Amino acid sequence: METDRERTRRPGGRSARVRAAVHQAVTDLVAERGYGNFTVGEVANRAGVADTSIYRRWGTLEALTMDVAITWLTATSPIPDTGSLEGDLRAYAANVARDVTGPDGPAVLRLVIALSTAGQDGMRARDAFLAERSSQLQTMLDRARARGEQPPDVLEVLDHILAPMYIRILFGAGPLTHDYVDTLVDRLLPLTGPAEG
Amino acid sequence: METDRERTRRPGGRSARVRAAVHQAVTDLVAERGYGNFTVGEVANRAGVADTSIYRRWGTLEALTMDVAITWLTATSPIPDTGSLEGDLRAYAANVARDVTGPDGPAVLRLVIALSTAGQDGMRARDAFLAERSSQLQTMLDRARARGEQPPDVLEVLDHILAPMYIRILFGAGPLTHDYVDTLVDRLLPLTGPAEG
Repeated sequence: METDRERTRRPGGRSARVRAAVHQAVTDLVAERGYGNFTVGEVANRAGVADTSIYRRWGTLEALTMDVAITWLTATSPIPDTGSLEGDLRAYAANVARDVTGPDGPAVLRLVIALSTAGQDGMRARDAFLAERSSQLQTMLDRARARGEQPPDVLEVLDHILAPMYIRILFGAGPLTHDYVDTLVDRLLPLTGPAEG
Repeated sequence: METDRERTRRPGGRSARVRAAVHQAVTDLVAERGYGNFTVGEVANRAGVADTSIYRRWGTLEALTMDVAITWLTATSPIPDTGSLEGDLRAYAANVARDVTGPDGPAVLRLVIALSTAGQDGMRARDAFLAERSSQLQTMLDRARARGEQPPDVLEVLDHILAPMYIRILFGAGPLTHDYVDTLVDRLLPLTGPAEG
């Protein structure tokens, strides 16, 4: 345990810890109750911070929730750069499989979907999550194109690599084995060879 | 409006109407508030029936919810029988696209996913939904195999036709156009030609 003096000396460290505690509280509450079934006060209580700290920093529960989802996404699925489209797709798919089956993955997925019924702010949060995921992917696919490869487009990766894994997790339809994930990539690859005509 | 005498004369008709009213109340409440945010009493109130009618008929809110999801599924996505695998897959995909974009589709999808966090009863309901969907598909694919065609397996249809459509609806990622749905089927078909070796 740290002393008050240490805390005073490291305001950045404390701020980061508060943020982490608040994020974890949101993730846990989403997993336990589902989005929409808890308040800012309950998040604050569980994270051990004051309500006002949350309102000052995030403004609304929707904005906080969006921050949680986007942070999880950027932190957990780094974009690989292996030098080939095939290598990148395999590494990316393996990363996503690991993350969505991890301790917070299903809760975050359900959170993003629950946001759709949370009015305008919720839809903005959901769209921001999707935009972030798309932007990550676009960077990887652009690099392949720059090397002279013919990558699929972002929506094809969404449809045939992310969507199957997301739905299997959400529906509880079996584990995402290494072979399964590789098969998803195999199905996408033949169509990314040299373009015809 | 019907008279009391008509009601008395058609007990089956009344029973069917109660069932439809209760189902619609559940679907509406799921769309408005999300699963977990309403009670049997609120369903009864909205459907204009007594709580006891619901408890007597369905037992629990989970059992009622499962009935709603399964009924929607069996009623809205009839299994085509066009005489060819390609025709069946195109018709099936078009049916699913129409249903999940219909007035109750997104709410039912979110319901099935929300059931995952509703404990053992909820998970049973979700699994029953998935089993029903799989069983529908298996019938269609078995017919293709009996004709000498090489159909994909059920999970491939789930992964590459249902999952992309479900995720696009859940994430609000664009409309399911006729061209889009046909492209999903096209991607699955080349792999269903004569088996090698």
